[in-house]
Amino acid sequence: MAANKAWTLASHPSGPVTPEHFKLVESPLPAPKDGEVLVKNLWLSLDPYMRGRMSQQKSYTKGVEVGEVMEGQTAGEVLESKHPGFARGDKVLARLGWQLYGCIRGDGEISKVDASRAPISYYLGVLGMPGMTAYFGLNEIGKPKAGETVVVSAASGAVGSVVGQLAKIAGCRVVGIAGGAPKCDYVTKELGFDACINYKAGNLYRDLKEACPKGVDVYFDNVGGEILDTMLRLMNPFSRLIVCGRISGYDGAEPYGLKNSGSILVNRVRMQGMIVFDWKDRYPEALKALAGYLAQGKIKTRESVVEGIEKAPQGFIDLLKGGNFGKQLVKLA
Amino acid sequence: MAANKAWTLASHPSGPVTPEHFKLVESPLPAPKDGEVLVKNLWLSLDPYMRGRMSQQKSYTKGVEVGEVMEGQTAGEVLESKHPGFARGDKVLARLGWQLYGCIRGDGEISKVDASRAPISYYLGVLGMPGMTAYFGLNEIGKPKAGETVVVSAASGAVGSVVGQLAKIAGCRVVGIAGGAPKCDYVTKELGFDACINYKAGNLYRDLKEACPKGVDVYFDNVGGEILDTMLRLMNPFSRLIVCGRISGYDGAEPYGLKNSGSILVNRVRMQGMIVFDWKDRYPEALKALAGYLAQGKIKTRESVVEGIEKAPQGFIDLLKGGNFGKQLVKLA
Repeated sequence: MAANKAWTLASHPSGPVTPEHFKLVESPLPAPKDGEVLVKNLWLSLDPYMRGRMSQQKSYTKGVEVGEVMEGQTAGEVLESKHPGFARGDKVLARLGWQLYGCIRGDGEISKVDASRAPISYYLGVLGMPGMTAYFGLNEIGKPKAGETVVVSAASGAVGSVVGQLAKIAGCRVVGIAGGAPKCDYVTKELGFDACINYKAGNLYRDLKEACPKGVDVYFDNVGGEILDTMLRLMNPFSRLIVCGRISGYDGAEPYGLKNSGSILVNRVRMQGMIVFDWKDRYPEALKALAGYLAQGKIKTRESVVEGIEKAPQGFIDLLKGGNFGKQLVKLA
Repeated sequence: MAANKAWTLASHPSGPVTPEHFKLVESPLPAPKDGEVLVKNLWLSLDPYMRGRMSQQKSYTKGVEVGEVMEGQTAGEVLESKHPGFARGDKVLARLGWQLYGCIRGDGEISKVDASRAPISYYLGVLGMPGMTAYFGLNEIGKPKAGETVVVSAASGAVGSVVGQLAKIAGCRVVGIAGGAPKCDYVTKELGFDACINYKAGNLYRDLKEACPKGVDVYFDNVGGEILDTMLRLMNPFSRLIVCGRISGYDGAEPYGLKNSGSILVNRVRMQGMIVFDWKDRYPEALKALAGYLAQGKIKTRESVVEGIEKAPQGFIDLLKGGNFGKQLVKLA
């Protein structure tokens, strides 16, 4: 039987991530102990938050140590089960990291998924953590009302694309921010946003102001930095700002100094950080809603796939640079 | 009868405010029209927000134009009334600006105050807008729970002193930030805060960290800038940050770039701007609570008084530099 391959952390990056920060390690196939399940991972999700896990800085959860397998969520199939809740052949979502096979306790971070409802890779994207992030961040912090203007950055990405489509369903004017004309075209033509601003065009403030003639009521921020600073200038009185990601600050960049925080006071902006795990107890509700919209064609999704575990580091480095187009995945088998 | 004297705006400051930005204008005593009340102002309140009114920048309300009387709240006595709701001798709170006398519509921004309950100057401070700001900002946005740690900047000031005392009443550990040892002594010894950090001592982060061994659950920010940035590093998961003032940025300084906004995401901080007028409908509730605490000796207050309308500009300039010690007032008569 095939051996396992796993990407471990070779060193903590202090600047941009490079392939040298990872090390591919081969090992025999692990054997499940009592209560455990052996999973063959079919898909690995690559997400910006992983950059934080590679750092030694304090964050909301502990990081990956040098020599440990890189963290990540996977979708796969049970090969062997020593837990009564799982059987060989079950399709599962698990937190097994950047590797081909892994053992996990059946009462741990593993759950069965319904592969008849959607391709299992969707449980890493629109029906997974990114979809949940969009759902709870927008609805519970953003609280958009019909007729309001909602802006979302990284609009073609796994989270942003769902945020915008949910805001359209809620009856809002929706403006995306993305890098490059192809992504903007996709966001408006395929996903149905009202407008999408290419931040690389160099006229971010002016372009956003034109696209948001009534100002901005909800801004869903996936990027931080200069784009967040610019958005602060456009926020309406009593607007809401979801701080969900800051990819611009992830890759070892010097912290950007936000100059327009005065707007928070003047406009009584409610600015709130969000991490999806805080809504764990309500995932079933979000899953039901998102799967329903997907089935009705009200939400579309797009995947950006690299093939083979060997390419995981490069896929991740590209993601941090905005090279992905839709949910970034590694196809493992 | 004496003539009126009024300070008008001579020019919009682009840097620090100087006496040349104001012009003292004398005029005959105004006569009330039907529906109006003529008030002799006894006290003028000086507040940091006035710096914003002097600017041409967009803010939450329109600014003072060159040649107009400087805005401000006053406490005084009715000299003549052509409105059925007021009679000669009534003690009133009104928005009459930096002048000795003024006419105002009886259905406008004027209200009678109970001079038997407290000195009328208190209605400009602990029982006025600063007290209301503290009450609603702390309770409605901060939502402190017993045992939590609350930090407030400009702790010896009109707002900060009430915030801290209300937080003590709520059962919190309360840490102030103030400029200089005398203010810190007052805050801890007179007002009963658990600790007070002198930001001028040069060890702000270290001193705060020591004074807040369990981190910070509520930060009431009256100053913005570097102190806010430092506080962001100390916020606990699910903490609340009330953005109430930013005196550090008022006086024409270059906008400070906040570097630690990443904490908002990591710690799911809820950061919200507050302006007291948004709670106008609930002022009676706050007044009742604050007057009760004052009567019971649970809240103490201190006034910093300059004598004579001629000294109003200098009093204001000193206030912007932190030269006041307690609620800053001008005694007009």
